[in-house]
Amino acid sequence: MSTVTHAEEVIARCNKLASFSEDPGSIRRTFLSPPIRDCHRELTKWLAAAGAVVTVDSAGNLRAFYAAEEPRAPRLLLGSHLDTVPNAGAYDGALGVLLAVTLLEALERRRLPFAIELVGFSEEEGVRFATPFIGSRALVGTLDEQFLNCQDRNGISIRTAIKDFGLDPEQIPRAVISENTLAYLEFHIEQGPVLESLGQSLGVVEAIAGQTRMEFIFVGRANHAGTTPMHLRHDAIAAAAEWILAVESSARSDPGLLATVGQIEATPGATNVIAGQARVSLDLRHRSDEIRLRAAAALTRLAEEIAGRRGLTVQSSELLSQRAVEMDPFLVAEIENAMRTVGCRPHRMISGAGHDAMILAEKVPAAMIFLRTPGGISHDPSESVMTEDVAKAIECGLHLLEQLASSAEFQKRMCRA
Amino acid sequence: MSTVTHAEEVIARCNKLASFSEDPGSIRRTFLSPPIRDCHRELTKWLAAAGAVVTVDSAGNLRAFYAAEEPRAPRLLLGSHLDTVPNAGAYDGALGVLLAVTLLEALERRRLPFAIELVGFSEEEGVRFATPFIGSRALVGTLDEQFLNCQDRNGISIRTAIKDFGLDPEQIPRAVISENTLAYLEFHIEQGPVLESLGQSLGVVEAIAGQTRMEFIFVGRANHAGTTPMHLRHDAIAAAAEWILAVESSARSDPGLLATVGQIEATPGATNVIAGQARVSLDLRHRSDEIRLRAAAALTRLAEEIAGRRGLTVQSSELLSQRAVEMDPFLVAEIENAMRTVGCRPHRMISGAGHDAMILAEKVPAAMIFLRTPGGISHDPSESVMTEDVAKAIECGLHLLEQLASSAEFQKRMCRA
Repeated sequence: MSTVTHAEEVIARCNKLASFSEDPGSIRRTFLSPPIRDCHRELTKWLAAAGAVVTVDSAGNLRAFYAAEEPRAPRLLLGSHLDTVPNAGAYDGALGVLLAVTLLEALERRRLPFAIELVGFSEEEGVRFATPFIGSRALVGTLDEQFLNCQDRNGISIRTAIKDFGLDPEQIPRAVISENTLAYLEFHIEQGPVLESLGQSLGVVEAIAGQTRMEFIFVGRANHAGTTPMHLRHDAIAAAAEWILAVESSARSDPGLLATVGQIEATPGATNVIAGQARVSLDLRHRSDEIRLRAAAALTRLAEEIAGRRGLTVQSSELLSQRAVEMDPFLVAEIENAMRTVGCRPHRMISGAGHDAMILAEKVPAAMIFLRTPGGISHDPSESVMTEDVAKAIECGLHLLEQLASSAEFQKRMCRA
Repeated sequence: MSTVTHAEEVIARCNKLASFSEDPGSIRRTFLSPPIRDCHRELTKWLAAAGAVVTVDSAGNLRAFYAAEEPRAPRLLLGSHLDTVPNAGAYDGALGVLLAVTLLEALERRRLPFAIELVGFSEEEGVRFATPFIGSRALVGTLDEQFLNCQDRNGISIRTAIKDFGLDPEQIPRAVISENTLAYLEFHIEQGPVLESLGQSLGVVEAIAGQTRMEFIFVGRANHAGTTPMHLRHDAIAAAAEWILAVESSARSDPGLLATVGQIEATPGATNVIAGQARVSLDLRHRSDEIRLRAAAALTRLAEEIAGRRGLTVQSSELLSQRAVEMDPFLVAEIENAMRTVGCRPHRMISGAGHDAMILAEKVPAAMIFLRTPGGISHDPSESVMTEDVAKAIECGLHLLEQLASSAEFQKRMCRA
């Protein structure tokens, strides 16, 4: 079977899983919703046929164990998530799981010096409980009481949802990854336009950016648009606009910084009334926490400077500050080698979005391979992948497994595990 | 009785009328609502005592006729409006009516060469029927069938509202001002901060600005805030912000131009999503229609240029274009003289807001005197006036009546009327 045929099968399987949805006519699979059970059933068929032993852990993650040459050999984790956003595409998450399935199948029951554990995470998107990574937190032991008490809109807690699915939340500590886990590797669509703009199939993630979310409220004075001269105004929209432009230009002048104002609300919000208040959001991402925190502070000072100069005040508050996570340098280098072998120019990139790999990295070396995302479009029914890119991912994954199997450094890690 | 005592009485009477409201605890008097009848009753008592004959015309305007020396003498109109916005102050409109009442009282039944007709307009704010100037349109003969068919939120037309108040809409043509009307004069609070910033009690309005209202929709591309590099974005909020700043700076560099973006709405409007669309309003005012229209065209081109440069599109639409109205130069000069006589430095200004005087000017020479508005605050319960300014307005009004009574130019006008 050629890798192109394998790739076509991966895409067909993604579309098969896409047919399992809470919503008729569009894809939605939230944490432990009925279609997740359908995914487990289909995946179990494929995985069992490939020689893996499949279970579902108490956090609802599908776990498939593909044994090594030796029974006590350490294991490599491969995975991604099975849940989706509402009105989702077919590839965000599912593609990574199905690529891992295909890698196991391609081994044709051949055993490696390390076992492979495939994980289909139960929850990554944070839709149902407004808190993401339920599945991967269980694997690193941080799905604690507080998380389990989170409730969805119907007042159902994560704990109850787990019970309702027929699982035992008391057994969650047993979902933690084995002590002899070597590393975690995840394939995922880029969800951005970078690889497409470079004409590349694959990219290797060096780090997952840290993230700051803030809110700024510019407070001026609402006044009559027809009777207040320009020089006597304290216009909250104009002040916010000046700051928004400065946010953009400061990010443009710093290559690694992403800064976004995605939300703006002005009051009273009438055509003939100067705005008295403007509330704007700020989303900042950078690989370096130091630079991100410095940018947040500089943009806060800038908001104060602009407000002060215009006779307004500004209130700012931090809603989120999430640290950046470095991927494992050894794995990144191995992935680059594998990419070269299959004729892909290695391209290192930063993931601006969070992923399960970020959570796994708390406990084991982790790495990610991104696939080109046509139009940069994800979280949308028009999300797609190119067959040739999926084929490259399969080839790259197989080479990577071979490299790791014969790598002296990985052997050393295996001895330590 | 000193003018200060008169001023205190004017303020007390404004507060009396403010007690007549549709809403308990706040002021709201929309077109021909029950509290308008209460205002008519109180005003009729004061006006009858001052020697005027009071009627209510078929558009609900209070009309008080104070005869001249000669029975067929032409007449001078004095007035303002009795309706209010919701949650209004006590002075917007009412002050102009009560200053006119006080001027009649101060004549102490002395007759002038011209009659005085006091008008308490039934509607100026446009609250109930979303169309302003119902009262003054009746006086110039433009309250036509189309207007009478306008409906309020309850499906009641202006025509029906008139009938329900006990008036006859068929008689509206008889509300048109007499052929021998000389001029219209209106006192009104400035509703802006200019006179306060200059430390002046009164200002004379040279012109009422024309007004353009437009809507601009910047259309870019919604995208993930974490995965879309700055240089690959088509951010609708950033484009709108650049344009809003340019709108502000173009108005700042043109002394007579007021330009306001009072409304902004961005979609999808999430912290972590680059905005795909931003809808913004534009309110433009200028004394010169030519300059206003040129500014509207230039700002539209600028929006297109900014959108084009950023890889967005922009749609613009004009919602309103209302011509500027010049006040009568002779009356403006006479008001300046009267202001000088009472020790006020004459200050000519443009009214950015529309007023009944704008409608009356279609048919007769019109002029307005503005009173300082503390904090520039109107359309709010904290709207206020200073007793000393009201006293200056009374003095100025009395001098103006004397000047007009003895003016050769006004005599000539009277002969023509």
